[in-house]
Amino acid sequence: MKEFTVTPDPDAPGLSENLQGVDQNGAAVHLPVVVEKPLTLFLNGQEIVTMMTIGDYPDYLALGYLLNQNMLQADDEVTGIDYDDDLGVVVVRTDRETDFEEKLKKKTQTSGCAQGTVFGDVMEKFEDIILDPEVMLKTSWIYSLSRKINQQPSLYLETGAIHGCVLCEEDRPLIYMEDVGRHNAIDKIAGYMWRQGISPKAKIFYTTGRLTSEMVIKTVQMQIPIVISRSGFTAWGVDLARQANLTLIGRAKGKRFVCLSGADRLVFDIDPATVPEESSKHQRKAAR
Amino acid sequence: MKEFTVTPDPDAPGLSENLQGVDQNGAAVHLPVVVEKPLTLFLNGQEIVTMMTIGDYPDYLALGYLLNQNMLQADDEVTGIDYDDDLGVVVVRTDRETDFEEKLKKKTQTSGCAQGTVFGDVMEKFEDIILDPEVMLKTSWIYSLSRKINQQPSLYLETGAIHGCVLCEEDRPLIYMEDVGRHNAIDKIAGYMWRQGISPKAKIFYTTGRLTSEMVIKTVQMQIPIVISRSGFTAWGVDLARQANLTLIGRAKGKRFVCLSGADRLVFDIDPATVPEESSKHQRKAAR
Repeated sequence: MKEFTVTPDPDAPGLSENLQGVDQNGAAVHLPVVVEKPLTLFLNGQEIVTMMTIGDYPDYLALGYLLNQNMLQADDEVTGIDYDDDLGVVVVRTDRETDFEEKLKKKTQTSGCAQGTVFGDVMEKFEDIILDPEVMLKTSWIYSLSRKINQQPSLYLETGAIHGCVLCEEDRPLIYMEDVGRHNAIDKIAGYMWRQGISPKAKIFYTTGRLTSEMVIKTVQMQIPIVISRSGFTAWGVDLARQANLTLIGRAKGKRFVCLSGADRLVFDIDPATVPEESSKHQRKAAR
Repeated sequence: MKEFTVTPDPDAPGLSENLQGVDQNGAAVHLPVVVEKPLTLFLNGQEIVTMMTIGDYPDYLALGYLLNQNMLQADDEVTGIDYDDDLGVVVVRTDRETDFEEKLKKKTQTSGCAQGTVFGDVMEKFEDIILDPEVMLKTSWIYSLSRKINQQPSLYLETGAIHGCVLCEEDRPLIYMEDVGRHNAIDKIAGYMWRQGISPKAKIFYTTGRLTSEMVIKTVQMQIPIVISRSGFTAWGVDLARQANLTLIGRAKGKRFVCLSGADRLVFDIDPATVPEESSKHQRKAAR
């Protein structure tokens, strides 16, 4: 699979708006601002959830959400996906009859959490997953991936205030998705992988977002053995990663990174001293 | 009210853990990592939601969540708040009988969005609120508040990977709350204001998080006329702020800021050129 098979298109119409305001000097400024709009997901006539999204790849977002919520099974046949941009609705249809009335009630109890809504039966599946211990991660790949991803044109560099997630293999970024919620970006990748039949074997997941319990749970569910993030950790995220033998690398910026789980997969093949620091431009963007 | 009446306590037991890992050189490192744990909220015997939180101020978080969801009214009498740390449960009791079975069903449909779950009837209330047009914001306050807040010891400076929200008046930070979810931090402030009878009049809300639709909706509901953020905007957040005449200032770092709504409240009383840039240390932390 070639590098950046899917990449953000910061110039795509509708993903950002140019808004007028004033700066610290009182001067008029025009600022590109990322769009955020509701998308309501139906599965076979049942309303499942409304997601806040930038609105690209609604089909992959819908599939990935259903997969990561265990509402769609790997062997399910999707007979249709209808998307209505004006109504902000996406409908997924399957051969199998589905009814998640009970699950939706259960979800109510965990909704509103900082990380969206993945728990309950999702955790049962989580505990059964064993990630491949044989997969290695060369530390030179961490630097190559960060450099390539940070230099790739994106809404992140254009507008800030958005998260990016990238499916990678060795030192090659493959599928780069962005969204206002990092859990949407990862769901879009999950949907793309399922639809295109891409194996999680020996894949690496790169994210700009924090390594919270939700991100770890979703990555493990997707059977991806390695996660790299620009951001920091939460203790529960680390705890879950250690349970699943997930290699968890955070604060990956410039020469630096920290690995708090699955360090035995690391192969130190490069001297960090030879790695250039990030440009201040990207450092500044990163904080938005 | 004096400065920093409430401030984070980065040394409080249980808010962070010191975890061991390896750095980019393969050397063992110990890293303070913020805690993230579930807290299940009951209102008069009905389970409402499970929130992911660092776990401080569970009573204010519970009250603020219920207030910002319109499940608790300003004139309600709270007869008791019971918190069980081991069970991760907080129970709020009111004189008035409550039943949100229908509302919880409705919430299901919007859960999982990047911004938690505020919509439906919350938007109806939103449209009735008129924020005081007389309130002014001196630009020198923006710089003073940023400097004071950034220099205040916090979990943010200690561990990163956490959001901070601060209720301010003129150039004085008053109530500083942190949490893994920025909507939890703002809910804790809402709960504190209600419990302590603090008026939103002429208050300023400072946040490290992005100015999304949810943050704007909650701030307007709390009747706070001004928001300042280190981070960027979403277009819908700006649109909602303009509807409510909320002064919305983002990307407030060093000398810089951008105002995309309610700029007529700004009083330019300082030359930005005289403002020192932020330390690289804080810039680095900010990206975590």
